[in-house]
Amino acid sequence: MDLLDDPVPGVGTYEDFNTIDWVREKSKDRDRHREITSKSKESTWALVKSVSDAFSGWLLMLLIGLMSGALAGGIDISAHWMTDLKEGVCLNGFWFNHEHCCWTSNETTFQERDKCPQWKSWAELIIGTTEGPFAYIMNYLMYVCWALLFSFLAVTLVRAFAPYACGSGIPEIKTILSGFIIRGYLGKWTLIIKTITLVLAVSSGLSLGKEGPLVHVACCCGNILCHLFTKYRKNEAKRREVLSAAAAVGVSVAFGAPIGGVLFSLEEVSYYFPLKTLWRSFFAALVAAFTLRSINPFGNSRLVLFYTTWLGHYPVLEVLVVTAVTAVVAFPNSYTRTSTSELISELFNDCGLLDSSKLCNYDNANVTKSSNELPDRPAGDDVYTAMWQLSLALVFKMLITVVTFGMKVPSGLFIPSMAVGAIAGRLLGIGMEQLAYYHHDWAIFRGWCSPGADCITPGLYAMVGAAACLGGVTRMTVSLVVIMFELTGGLEYIVPLMAAAMTSKWVADAIGREGIYEAHIRLNGYPFLEAKEEFSHKTLAMDVMRPRRSDPPLSVLTQDGMTVEDVETMITETTYSGFPVVVSHESQRLVGFVLRRDLTISIDNARQRQDGIVSTSRIFFTEYTPPQPPSSPPPLKLRGIMDLSPFTVTDHTAMDIVVDIFRKLGLRQCLITHNGRLLGIITKKDILKHVAQIANRDPDSILFN
Amino acid sequence: MDLLDDPVPGVGTYEDFNTIDWVREKSKDRDRHREITSKSKESTWALVKSVSDAFSGWLLMLLIGLMSGALAGGIDISAHWMTDLKEGVCLNGFWFNHEHCCWTSNETTFQERDKCPQWKSWAELIIGTTEGPFAYIMNYLMYVCWALLFSFLAVTLVRAFAPYACGSGIPEIKTILSGFIIRGYLGKWTLIIKTITLVLAVSSGLSLGKEGPLVHVACCCGNILCHLFTKYRKNEAKRREVLSAAAAVGVSVAFGAPIGGVLFSLEEVSYYFPLKTLWRSFFAALVAAFTLRSINPFGNSRLVLFYTTWLGHYPVLEVLVVTAVTAVVAFPNSYTRTSTSELISELFNDCGLLDSSKLCNYDNANVTKSSNELPDRPAGDDVYTAMWQLSLALVFKMLITVVTFGMKVPSGLFIPSMAVGAIAGRLLGIGMEQLAYYHHDWAIFRGWCSPGADCITPGLYAMVGAAACLGGVTRMTVSLVVIMFELTGGLEYIVPLMAAAMTSKWVADAIGREGIYEAHIRLNGYPFLEAKEEFSHKTLAMDVMRPRRSDPPLSVLTQDGMTVEDVETMITETTYSGFPVVVSHESQRLVGFVLRRDLTISIDNARQRQDGIVSTSRIFFTEYTPPQPPSSPPPLKLRGIMDLSPFTVTDHTAMDIVVDIFRKLGLRQCLITHNGRLLGIITKKDILKHVAQIANRDPDSILFN
Repeated sequence: MDLLDDPVPGVGTYEDFNTIDWVREKSKDRDRHREITSKSKESTWALVKSVSDAFSGWLLMLLIGLMSGALAGGIDISAHWMTDLKEGVCLNGFWFNHEHCCWTSNETTFQERDKCPQWKSWAELIIGTTEGPFAYIMNYLMYVCWALLFSFLAVTLVRAFAPYACGSGIPEIKTILSGFIIRGYLGKWTLIIKTITLVLAVSSGLSLGKEGPLVHVACCCGNILCHLFTKYRKNEAKRREVLSAAAAVGVSVAFGAPIGGVLFSLEEVSYYFPLKTLWRSFFAALVAAFTLRSINPFGNSRLVLFYTTWLGHYPVLEVLVVTAVTAVVAFPNSYTRTSTSELISELFNDCGLLDSSKLCNYDNANVTKSSNELPDRPAGDDVYTAMWQLSLALVFKMLITVVTFGMKVPSGLFIPSMAVGAIAGRLLGIGMEQLAYYHHDWAIFRGWCSPGADCITPGLYAMVGAAACLGGVTRMTVSLVVIMFELTGGLEYIVPLMAAAMTSKWVADAIGREGIYEAHIRLNGYPFLEAKEEFSHKTLAMDVMRPRRSDPPLSVLTQDGMTVEDVETMITETTYSGFPVVVSHESQRLVGFVLRRDLTISIDNARQRQDGIVSTSRIFFTEYTPPQPPSSPPPLKLRGIMDLSPFTVTDHTAMDIVVDIFRKLGLRQCLITHNGRLLGIITKKDILKHVAQIANRDPDSILFN
Repeated sequence: MDLLDDPVPGVGTYEDFNTIDWVREKSKDRDRHREITSKSKESTWALVKSVSDAFSGWLLMLLIGLMSGALAGGIDISAHWMTDLKEGVCLNGFWFNHEHCCWTSNETTFQERDKCPQWKSWAELIIGTTEGPFAYIMNYLMYVCWALLFSFLAVTLVRAFAPYACGSGIPEIKTILSGFIIRGYLGKWTLIIKTITLVLAVSSGLSLGKEGPLVHVACCCGNILCHLFTKYRKNEAKRREVLSAAAAVGVSVAFGAPIGGVLFSLEEVSYYFPLKTLWRSFFAALVAAFTLRSINPFGNSRLVLFYTTWLGHYPVLEVLVVTAVTAVVAFPNSYTRTSTSELISELFNDCGLLDSSKLCNYDNANVTKSSNELPDRPAGDDVYTAMWQLSLALVFKMLITVVTFGMKVPSGLFIPSMAVGAIAGRLLGIGMEQLAYYHHDWAIFRGWCSPGADCITPGLYAMVGAAACLGGVTRMTVSLVVIMFELTGGLEYIVPLMAAAMTSKWVADAIGREGIYEAHIRLNGYPFLEAKEEFSHKTLAMDVMRPRRSDPPLSVLTQDGMTVEDVETMITETTYSGFPVVVSHESQRLVGFVLRRDLTISIDNARQRQDGIVSTSRIFFTEYTPPQPPSSPPPLKLRGIMDLSPFTVTDHTAMDIVVDIFRKLGLRQCLITHNGRLLGIITKKDILKHVAQIANRDPDSILFN
């Protein structure tokens, strides 16, 4: 029996928490593709199969777009309803949210869409009035109770059914896309629980963002739908191409920004992003954006959601305490009580003449009603009140977001950090506007701030502040600007947004090089080889490779000199993931490379199924097996499981080149030679440890291989 | 003298029409960076230098954006003036174009901005009247004469001063970005001549587009500005990063589409596009777009330009004949006389009630003037006339573009192919609209085409047609959709545009896999390794490598066994670009790789400058030179020019993996080993020849290495 013809089940698969070999996976897919193409000339059925194989990628993208868009729409609608439930209920039917309730009512005027007899606040429903301190306390209490209930349900569901459903998900998805395997992270349970807890968390009002989780949800959809197609189910590399596209879909539905989503996936999340994936991502992102819009045509609301990374010691208690604090502090201040996305859109908004927002309470005495462009005006009392409330909200948001993040129940930081930036920007904008109004003869204002001119736009300051804050947290660049551009829709804002993104990246980089996701990956000890930072140290491969000078020599197999027992002893005595095969111990000429897992599976399989394989059977990795003496047991041929083209570099190769090869080709290990002799091996883990050591970090923080 | 310490001038540079070694260039840059960083701690001056080095990339981007934007603005304005010069002249000053002339005039009403007494057509100026057939012929004649003059000047200037200024430039830029060297292709003469001839060609009215040349102009700017900074002047890889960004700038100024430009560079032109370049491209593209807008705020006109690829046998005559034919045929039909970009924007335009275009001559009897949305209406006579003229223009444009391209005076095909697509789309759109109006009870129209509804938008059909036609020619995908989206500004058009781009790509791919630029690269025999197509044949490295089975063995150097004479003989007897260095001929253990150019330069240099180096001097590539007998000449140590980390793969490596390595790492050559022995070599040219052979093309069409 030749293993080359009949592969043993399990050979060529990976264990959990291990890194895939991109080269092997891609070459497997090309073999598959070649086989289908060559068969397609033989029969019509094979031709149909080949065509359907070619289109399966597009079909998959369509399905991912539809499913993610539908889920995001469902999340939007349910979260809206549950957020309103904290304040009251609709008499026409409890399933209506506030807006919808008053919409179906005929007694509503356009001016006061929010007020209608059908919608009852809890105080009104229970004690029959909305006036007086007692009713206020009643509403306050109900608000806090609902928030606690939602967050309790969320944290319990996550703990009970899908611990992977917690966390922003983006660091893990980045790691998975780089080739790591975390089984179940993108499974159906994670999807179901994450979707439900997303709604609960959004409704509970915690100061957290929803973009990360939506990316995670979209990637779960992608991974689950991959199982419909053999091409993607069986190939880890192809599946990662689909997941890259799914990440773009996630951002697309989170912000309604398909181009921004594609660029986010390209810039921030993906590791291997060929042009084909670019195009497919774009398609899927568009499908998702339009599905979402057709489900929830009026809601472009940005939701707030909650999620946990790794659960702490008292996760439920912690979450309840933070929710209680958030709810108690948030209720009295109208800017923290409203959903964060509504707050942001109010801050971005420019004041028209009819705007009822407190932020727009300007003195309109000198303004002609017909003019289209409003000049700078003096602020009214309400604006000053609003500024006080916003300042308090700013402090609260900053603190509560840090606490929420610090207590290891963290979080999509997109929306909270945008809110912090937007508040700061708007405050600065109003300040500048008033300064310009009262001191328009100052040097900096002279020229364009004459009386009656419209020279300061506080809404733009808010937008720029939001972009700057988000840019500082995530270190996004092009994708940030494009997402903000798609959100706001004006090409003229690109320049200030870009300046903000650039400045904040420079300032943040000066303080610390890592964005929030990279920091997360490092804290969790994932084996992620950062593609953005250049490896800038002048070490050579020989400085990093194993074995070190003092270590015992490299464990190698010889191509024809070892028995089954020898190999089994070597496997039990070492923990290496693979072994090089050489011609002989003396020459150290490299023949190939065998993975430990494949070796173990093959020997076990041979011992069970193949006649006569015993401990003294010789193992051959050669092409031709020499005739065995009649008395000896039959040989075990294992050339089929050997990688005949292992990557090698010389010991004098600079480590920056080695790192480049690892990144670009997605290697797991690389063998080191000197003048044609095998000298050692470098694995991805060795490189990560080396990088950690150079950066004065603990090399043992790299946990996985 | 050790060559390691004091490099010989010329070592490490490349010859014209050769491919660079990306790995070497990038590693050189990292060394440079390391040196600057380590020095920066020593003195304040070194610190300033290190900071300015870090910012030089951004400064360079700013300069490229400003220069390209300014040039594009100048080209726009001059071409506009010269195009109008074909029809008449302004009495207020000959440097005013038609619009500007009537603008400065006080006698112009808003309705007839184009008519004013100061602007005289040639007939009016010469014979004093615009009426009658004689005046028409007079104008016709002047139109043709000016066109001939402009095109004659253009072709003569290109021939006399800068032959590289002809051609669309994009295929060459793609090849240059992939690592090829064409000296002077992006030089100052090319820039000057290309800018001038661009204006002349645009004004002559030939059916050609301007985007390719603007990309070329922007890349020239990038290349010239690189000389201001040592970092980019001396490093071929770093300079290519700048050129990638410059390509984005070119498209950004051609279409006013910065995001589309970045994606075009990423998808279509660039070979190595790290994330840093993405961000810088975006910055440069924005600067350029805004510079252009501030120079030429009213012109978002898309120009038409002319250029040649390779001059034919009678280039001047050919160009004159085509110009004459173009001018003679174009003048009588108003749709071909107008500039192609104006034609396209008229075709994209939806008809308002006040539109004076013939295409908008609908029967408005049943329309209330106040309604914002115009229902479908029956076409008036002028629409039918316009359709006839458009049909003729379609046939003419298709033919003249093919002829212009076929006669080897080709061409940016963006605008002409968009025009062809837009005409076809508009015709179909009007047809559908009338069909829907008269047969709104047909099954396909029922539901949304009730009488009085606005169900067919002919302008959208034109847009989709333009995208489809351009997509078929260039096979662009995401960048096409984003450029069209930025041109038209409506997210709702993305879905039809995307469907068009996808369908046209599929249809075109079914007919032939190559886009116009790839076909061009192949016709010119450039060494370009296509990154988009997968290498799908099951060959192994041993099938492609040299020497073949019947060939003489590989020419190798030994590390310590050869004299200067031996090496010189080997150099004269072979034409290889480089030689592997082995321990000994018997063992064939690989030590390193030496480039022919470096070897020649070093030996010549040593013979001239180094005492005692004669033909019998032994050459050493080893680390330590054994003591020489006193009688023998001094040894020549050449370890410094040897690449100690040549890339190797085993002979069993699948060619798809080898191709992947070449693409991703940008290799020039890779050595092949078997069980640790050196067996052969694969160069980029070998791979290209192999690919050509598989595709049944002539392998000798690959001209360069």
